[in-house]
Amino acid sequence: MPNVKNIFIGSPLKNESLKDEKLNVYWGLPILASDAISSVAYASEEILLVLVPAIGILAYKQLSWVALSIVMLLFLLVLSYRQTIQSYPNGGGAYIVAKDNLGVNWGISAGAALSVDYILTVAVSISSGIAAIISAFPSLLNYRIELCLLFLGLLMIGNLRGIRESAKIFSLPTYAFVIGLIIMIVYGFIKVWFLGFVPPQPSIEQLKVMEPLTLFLLLRAFSSGCTALTGIEAVSNAVPNFKEPNIKKAQKTLVLLGILVFVCFMGTALLANTYHVIPSANKTVLSMIASEIFGNSIMYYYIQITTMIILVMAANTAFSGFPMLISVMAADGYAPRQLNQRGDRLSFSNGILMLSSFAAILILIFRGDTHLLIPLYAVGVFMSFTLSQSGMLMKWLRSKNEKDRLSKILINGSGAIVTGIATIIIGWTKFIHGAWIVVVIIPAIIFLCMKIKKHYTAVALQLKRTDDELAELDIDKDKYINHVIVPIASINKASIRALRYARTISKKVTAFHVSINEEDSEKIRKRWALLNTDIKLYVRYSPYRKIIEPLLELIESEEHEYKKGDMITVVLPKFSVSSLWQNILHNHTRFFLENKLLKYKHIVVATMPLQLKVDEVAIDRYNK
Amino acid sequence: MPNVKNIFIGSPLKNESLKDEKLNVYWGLPILASDAISSVAYASEEILLVLVPAIGILAYKQLSWVALSIVMLLFLLVLSYRQTIQSYPNGGGAYIVAKDNLGVNWGISAGAALSVDYILTVAVSISSGIAAIISAFPSLLNYRIELCLLFLGLLMIGNLRGIRESAKIFSLPTYAFVIGLIIMIVYGFIKVWFLGFVPPQPSIEQLKVMEPLTLFLLLRAFSSGCTALTGIEAVSNAVPNFKEPNIKKAQKTLVLLGILVFVCFMGTALLANTYHVIPSANKTVLSMIASEIFGNSIMYYYIQITTMIILVMAANTAFSGFPMLISVMAADGYAPRQLNQRGDRLSFSNGILMLSSFAAILILIFRGDTHLLIPLYAVGVFMSFTLSQSGMLMKWLRSKNEKDRLSKILINGSGAIVTGIATIIIGWTKFIHGAWIVVVIIPAIIFLCMKIKKHYTAVALQLKRTDDELAELDIDKDKYINHVIVPIASINKASIRALRYARTISKKVTAFHVSINEEDSEKIRKRWALLNTDIKLYVRYSPYRKIIEPLLELIESEEHEYKKGDMITVVLPKFSVSSLWQNILHNHTRFFLENKLLKYKHIVVATMPLQLKVDEVAIDRYNK
Repeated sequence: MPNVKNIFIGSPLKNESLKDEKLNVYWGLPILASDAISSVAYASEEILLVLVPAIGILAYKQLSWVALSIVMLLFLLVLSYRQTIQSYPNGGGAYIVAKDNLGVNWGISAGAALSVDYILTVAVSISSGIAAIISAFPSLLNYRIELCLLFLGLLMIGNLRGIRESAKIFSLPTYAFVIGLIIMIVYGFIKVWFLGFVPPQPSIEQLKVMEPLTLFLLLRAFSSGCTALTGIEAVSNAVPNFKEPNIKKAQKTLVLLGILVFVCFMGTALLANTYHVIPSANKTVLSMIASEIFGNSIMYYYIQITTMIILVMAANTAFSGFPMLISVMAADGYAPRQLNQRGDRLSFSNGILMLSSFAAILILIFRGDTHLLIPLYAVGVFMSFTLSQSGMLMKWLRSKNEKDRLSKILINGSGAIVTGIATIIIGWTKFIHGAWIVVVIIPAIIFLCMKIKKHYTAVALQLKRTDDELAELDIDKDKYINHVIVPIASINKASIRALRYARTISKKVTAFHVSINEEDSEKIRKRWALLNTDIKLYVRYSPYRKIIEPLLELIESEEHEYKKGDMITVVLPKFSVSSLWQNILHNHTRFFLENKLLKYKHIVVATMPLQLKVDEVAIDRYNK
Repeated sequence: MPNVKNIFIGSPLKNESLKDEKLNVYWGLPILASDAISSVAYASEEILLVLVPAIGILAYKQLSWVALSIVMLLFLLVLSYRQTIQSYPNGGGAYIVAKDNLGVNWGISAGAALSVDYILTVAVSISSGIAAIISAFPSLLNYRIELCLLFLGLLMIGNLRGIRESAKIFSLPTYAFVIGLIIMIVYGFIKVWFLGFVPPQPSIEQLKVMEPLTLFLLLRAFSSGCTALTGIEAVSNAVPNFKEPNIKKAQKTLVLLGILVFVCFMGTALLANTYHVIPSANKTVLSMIASEIFGNSIMYYYIQITTMIILVMAANTAFSGFPMLISVMAADGYAPRQLNQRGDRLSFSNGILMLSSFAAILILIFRGDTHLLIPLYAVGVFMSFTLSQSGMLMKWLRSKNEKDRLSKILINGSGAIVTGIATIIIGWTKFIHGAWIVVVIIPAIIFLCMKIKKHYTAVALQLKRTDDELAELDIDKDKYINHVIVPIASINKASIRALRYARTISKKVTAFHVSINEEDSEKIRKRWALLNTDIKLYVRYSPYRKIIEPLLELIESEEHEYKKGDMITVVLPKFSVSSLWQNILHNHTRFFLENKLLKYKHIVVATMPLQLKVDEVAIDRYNK
């Protein structure tokens, strides 16, 4: 078992390796930007999917306006988040910012919203990546879900291996995608503007107007396009992942990320407009644009394959963000503590496994269909944007002496208002299409976090001892007698070892045997008589099933002289065997016995390991 | 959790209930006979499936001869097994008989063959039962596998509830099926012989001769039909399940079973001959016969539904046989010991769960298709027949003074020879159709059983202490010092309780704290100083991951004064919480620590339970 694990995950790393796992700008950008940049692969398509069936040919003009408004929102977010990075060099993003400035409840709300969003990032990105590859290779259509799960599994393993290695694997494809996309944008316009290429015009029938152009329709298109902005916050969450000076490096990364998203998203939106692409079921809009521009050439396949890879890598953003977010929440007691433990390779293994499981469930439920997942997406992230910006705004409002206070208030204030409005628009226009699921789940997570915190608090309160109380204690004074009971199935090496141990820890030792029949009892009594000991053996009849009940009866019987307040230690040998399959053959009774005994607060179970070695020669001799 | 279990499984039964769970002839017959009788539902069909595509119209004549030869084999088996029941009133069937008379290796071979056969009984019977119901209700065709798994689950739950209740649930349908079948056979012949009904003649095209009639073809047909005889041995395995006098009752049951199988199997084979039924994909032969005889009347549905029920119940035979067989093998050390433990309801729960799992895997692999499963079937059971009969033969050859020795030798001798030949025929004619799987798996199981036995023997040898050795021991004399180490995360109620306990079990107590940073260490040292104790606190730096390594270093360091041969007890508190979800929040570090520590033979882990109660009022007060 450990060897299999090492093959996939790599051999364990020491704690000291942690500081080596940090990012510089050019490793950091591809890891943290892939989510935001990759949304180019579906954002324009989702806008067109809302507009084309409704307003036909008019959709293309509106696409440009909707894209422009989203790009403006993008710049506002970059400005806002630069300030967040400056103020929060330790990361934690919306959760920390909201908690610090708006209070714990808003912090948890932001954390819940973000964690849902991370899971959706994984599901949406992988589904969309597989859609890109199916566009190029339609024969893979029947393996959509299997391919999604395969890539999810690869990502999980990659991330369990640790951050830096991830960067090396994942950074080249991001650059490859961006370069390919820029070539396509530039050549796409050259082809129309300078080479006189006339894109095929869709038929009037395909593009007839079915509905009036309403504000609601535009807002729905805007909501769909807002998915392009998910992932912008990744940089601010991951500031401590950067090398020193991490604030500068993170800010630089954020600005570069903004520029790349702008170029790629606006470029493809204008290309879709110019080439009048109509969304279809099994081909993505991006693949149709690439096909128009590059024909069936190698460049077409280059675009499709890098699109797939960057989308799968985008899911990777969530694999760095999610485990870190919930580890911070776990450290504060709002999530199970083990989510704050690093694994062998210094990644937060439990968080990675949790993220992978939930994403797999989403992929299975929505059959790996991007269009079905999109309405769930973006509500969470815009909610966390709003809470984060509101938190920053509150911070500036409170700190009277801050430098450039007014401009900071203006930037984060407008950020908060605009993202707040966007959240409402997204939740409203997509509510019936699936956003309601998120609207239900986020409060459920908030409730769960509160309940977990309440539990940990209750435990801490119950365990607490003040300094004064400590000073009054006298640990060294015996307050009670410790009775030791050694259950024995037969008198053998293991039971003798257990009895000997029992003798060293107490003067009150009792041996206990449960017999199925009188013959059995007689045999063990005879063997016991041979032993040179004053330990008393109790034999109880209980045909082959119950052990606990007669044991508890013995404890409470008068002959045992147990007084309330005394402790009881039950010594149980545990066989240690060399291989897993041998383990199946042992320790079942011990396991059940221990579980049942530990329900009694006055019973301590002492587990005594016994190494078993299979001596093949001795067996062969014995068999003869 | 316990409540859910009780709803499905029933409340626990006492050991003393065991003797009440016994069978009389008329409860025993339906339980033990359903396997053999129900094969009527597919045996004739499997013969026709071999013959009709090859020799067309000639198939019907040959069907009668093949069926007759199988019936003769049936009578020989009934005679042979009557003698087995007489000699082995404690059951165990082929495994016991072969082990006693031919040696351990042949016993295990029989056991392995039988256990494979039991699993196939479950898979084949359920698949065939669902085929019966799909014949009547074709719209269920798409839910074949789901239905198979549903009935498998119901059987599993029924059997976990215990034997007698099973009988009550399962006996009426068996009788209902037999009565329905006899009515069909009688009325089927009356309709043709007396009422002048002329069955529709299949076209020449459908029944043209494609191949010559070869001996191999007839033997293949015979092999397919031999599935009708599986389950005959069930009675001899289950003799101890009968009320006293159990030998007489079991023999009577066996004879009745033989008569019923004869009537039902021969009757349907002759009906198939008379009505010239042609096997088809989604309708069973039995359903086509019933449809010819009863039209679309209520009787047709009665036959289909009782066929389904008896087949599902037939699977139940395996649910009584398999767990008992492997419990006997487990008691002998050839299977994991826990297979010999009865559950709350006195059934061998582990065996039942094991059988259900393997049958579910077979149903999934073969998509619930009876025809694909049949070639795997019967090899195992005929191999066990052969070993059992050979064992009996050997017994009579050895016991010179046995009454009626010669007739006993003749019966079991001819039984052994005939079933041996049948085993070879089945394995040979069906090898490429799937029998090879069983031919591979049975030796694998035999190997596994040997390996398990070898392991248990090695362990027993290693643990063994002779009477002389016992007399020389002096358990009460201290041979070593027990050092106690209490790892503490902070100084609280739990750690103080652990320290106090440590004090009662040894004079050499050390407290141990792993710190992540200097600040932490300082704080715990200050709090420790407040304690009025001479227990020494060791603080070790180990940033947030490793605990084991510094602990082992401490033990081996000179300041700890540990000498080879001494024992170390590590006291670990375990939080006991009231609900399952709370359990997720605790005890993870403890779990890993315990697992790692118990790899060292000189370390005992003392687990100290600590009941936690969530005091809501106190938290609310604390939060204010």
